[in-house]
Amino acid sequence: MARYKLTVEYDGTPYCGWQRQANGLSVQEVIETGIQGFSSETVTLFGAGRTDAGVHATGQVAHVDLQRDWPEDTVRDALNAHLRDELVSILSAERVSDGFDARFSARKRWYLYRIFNRRAPPAVARGKVWWVWRDLDIAAMNDAAQALVGTHDFNTFRSTHCQAKNPIRTLEQLTVSKGSGDEVHIVAMAQSFLHNQIRSFAGTLKLVGEHRWTRADVVSALDARDRTRCGPVAPPDGLYLTQVDYGDAPKRTLPPYPG
Amino acid sequence: MARYKLTVEYDGTPYCGWQRQANGLSVQEVIETGIQGFSSETVTLFGAGRTDAGVHATGQVAHVDLQRDWPEDTVRDALNAHLRDELVSILSAERVSDGFDARFSARKRWYLYRIFNRRAPPAVARGKVWWVWRDLDIAAMNDAAQALVGTHDFNTFRSTHCQAKNPIRTLEQLTVSKGSGDEVHIVAMAQSFLHNQIRSFAGTLKLVGEHRWTRADVVSALDARDRTRCGPVAPPDGLYLTQVDYGDAPKRTLPPYPG
Repeated sequence: MARYKLTVEYDGTPYCGWQRQANGLSVQEVIETGIQGFSSETVTLFGAGRTDAGVHATGQVAHVDLQRDWPEDTVRDALNAHLRDELVSILSAERVSDGFDARFSARKRWYLYRIFNRRAPPAVARGKVWWVWRDLDIAAMNDAAQALVGTHDFNTFRSTHCQAKNPIRTLEQLTVSKGSGDEVHIVAMAQSFLHNQIRSFAGTLKLVGEHRWTRADVVSALDARDRTRCGPVAPPDGLYLTQVDYGDAPKRTLPPYPG
Repeated sequence: MARYKLTVEYDGTPYCGWQRQANGLSVQEVIETGIQGFSSETVTLFGAGRTDAGVHATGQVAHVDLQRDWPEDTVRDALNAHLRDELVSILSAERVSDGFDARFSARKRWYLYRIFNRRAPPAVARGKVWWVWRDLDIAAMNDAAQALVGTHDFNTFRSTHCQAKNPIRTLEQLTVSKGSGDEVHIVAMAQSFLHNQIRSFAGTLKLVGEHRWTRADVVSALDARDRTRCGPVAPPDGLYLTQVDYGDAPKRTLPPYPG
């Protein structure tokens, strides 16, 4: 048996999310079917982040066990050949020890949320960004974001469907900055996140950018630990899982946002 | 009567090209229908560049005459409201003199060709770039490109369907450089281009980047003035009409490639 670490890019638009579901095609199922196509094995793939429907990834990580010890490049290229009709691409396949677990070995998860901030709606980037037409105050958003960094009970900023028993998380980084062109980028990093946490942050910080909320309103919402105090949850379109770091592995450069 | 200059962005994927056709939905038709939706007028739109099926634009320019003298922002916003189900967005509408002609007043047309140069196929950028998996020598490509700059008979580098009587054009700029991430960008600028000229350049320069052609091969192909000597024509996916300059107007900053 040989364990492989796969780094995966996908456009989440046509999929029901990362995780296999009875009623919809998931990214997990697409890749598992691709593996069956080239190795004739029925496998289960374990992903680092269970992205929702419509959420994208440029650096999702998953692991899978194969019966044969294939060369790494063969796994990547053969799998990509089987995935050619899907919006899923295997960036790399690496042979790892049996102790490696894509989900439980992850130390840092990086997400990017892309806001498209101009008067005219996006045409080329449709489905890949969240269109906000009111001018955003990026400095105010970034300042308010810093109030969320640290160890907190994030109950306000998680879905009511969130299955985590403990709503306490340590948010290591949350920055808002100007992206290329008319984009505003929110970068979030933590060991783990709650369900809808980043989209809840994005929707709330947008209110700050529009000067409808202040930093104090964000702090007050956080302290309330009350889901109804969250701003509107931002759509999945703008969210990307960009990178997952594992303790011993050298950190990759954060990839630029995808075209 | 009031003449408007429209600056237009579109994802060319679902359209049969810019120009209205009997058998397919064009960007021109989509916008003309949008104008009819908000002003109840049947109009004809004149574009600066007749982009082919699948070719994109971030700065196409068109002009149209309307019976009423609407405020510029009203034209832009009302039209975008009518275009909301299309991958077409009006970036600006400007009131211009009757002497302005989007096509014939144009002094410089700028195009960007995006090559996606990595081993794994694109997932998020699918349809927006040309995937070339062999490592490209960007310096060699740019050097060969300079042999094409200037006034030449470009018969080698135009479609057999090109309707221009005169194959002589003055290519003012053709540069190949590293884009963000794994992209290689070809930027071309001239007052006007022949049909398929930039895609013919891109396909030929790719051969240079792969070290299958030399700069001398490119010169020899140009001098032959023979269509059969052109490299394979690159697909429409990577091509963007990014900007059209008109003599008196201040030059816009070349927009970054769209996400």
